[in-house]
Amino acid sequence: MKFYDCATAPSPRRVRIFIAEKGLVIPVEEVDLAARQQHSEAFARLNPHRTVPVLELDDGSVLTSTAAIWHYLEHRYPHKPLIGCTAAERGRIVDLEWHIEQQGFMAVGESFRNKSKAFARHAFTGAHEYPQIPPLVERGRRRAVEFFAWLNAQLADQPYVAGDAFSIADITAIVTLDFARWIKLEIPDDHTALKRWQSEVSVRPSVCA
Amino acid sequence: MKFYDCATAPSPRRVRIFIAEKGLVIPVEEVDLAARQQHSEAFARLNPHRTVPVLELDDGSVLTSTAAIWHYLEHRYPHKPLIGCTAAERGRIVDLEWHIEQQGFMAVGESFRNKSKAFARHAFTGAHEYPQIPPLVERGRRRAVEFFAWLNAQLADQPYVAGDAFSIADITAIVTLDFARWIKLEIPDDHTALKRWQSEVSVRPSVCA
Repeated sequence: MKFYDCATAPSPRRVRIFIAEKGLVIPVEEVDLAARQQHSEAFARLNPHRTVPVLELDDGSVLTSTAAIWHYLEHRYPHKPLIGCTAAERGRIVDLEWHIEQQGFMAVGESFRNKSKAFARHAFTGAHEYPQIPPLVERGRRRAVEFFAWLNAQLADQPYVAGDAFSIADITAIVTLDFARWIKLEIPDDHTALKRWQSEVSVRPSVCA
Repeated sequence: MKFYDCATAPSPRRVRIFIAEKGLVIPVEEVDLAARQQHSEAFARLNPHRTVPVLELDDGSVLTSTAAIWHYLEHRYPHKPLIGCTAAERGRIVDLEWHIEQQGFMAVGESFRNKSKAFARHAFTGAHEYPQIPPLVERGRRRAVEFFAWLNAQLADQPYVAGDAFSIADITAIVTLDFARWIKLEIPDDHTALKRWQSEVSVRPSVCA
């Protein structure tokens, strides 16, 4: 296997944390997004979506989304489960992670990519050019603020996002919180549960990696 | 268990098809989205996101996203697998379904919800109001057109989206194609593989249900 990563980007970080939590050792190839290496002929042949993360399997096939890489690795290396063991655990974790990705991670990305000059013609990751739409800067930010409040309530009476165990829901949540700093969005002081969780999760070796 | 459905809406249809493919019998409660029943006090208490589909489990907990309901049911009823059996199958199917949801289903929804007068203050499903952003009508449509071309290529040399077996990737794809009619987007004549697949999948009993 080979993991195509980019040390500075939020999306592949979700895979990096997962791999570290599992204690897996997978060869890494760094993709320099700042140098637009994802648009190189070689990389576009590997992944026509021209995004990271990518996990290349031993048969040469590739997985090109965080969710797919997680489910593949969880199935192959079921020790230290991060997507639950029972049907109920799996359902709850997938549910929360999906909402965090769509309402948090995507919202921050929407705000960031529609503002930064570097993405004037690339409001989406990927092969196709889409110009920025300025009202999305504020809409994405507002959605992220609503997401913070929801996540704070979710953490009011349990240690981790999905209950007693660290899971992929925590991974997308902590990456989203750090990503939100790119749009200068910090956790409000009255979100005490979210701040408590952030301080605990941020010092995990996998999250620092 | 109880499945909260809406016969006319694309999102819960993805769950309805899954349940029918598995041959499961789950009690259904219809939620009248046209009458804004999802914003009723009773429903908002059940699902604060105020969306369908919802699967209520026997312990009273709820799953409020298509992905979560699918993974829960697949784990509990593994016969007739729709998310693969091996790690490689699971990874490939989750990968394709994720791309189809994000690049197809979400793109059509973006175009539709930012145009229809019924959603003037509700460009997103859910509890919070977001006004429409007119440029998203055309952007969503353009993204859907790119998605059609990608899906056509994906189906060029295999019967189903993820290979030889019908899977959740086919479910989201066929629901997206039918949803695209709401924005008057039909498959171009030269997308012959996509047309062949559509005509075959559309007559499955689960898809007609």
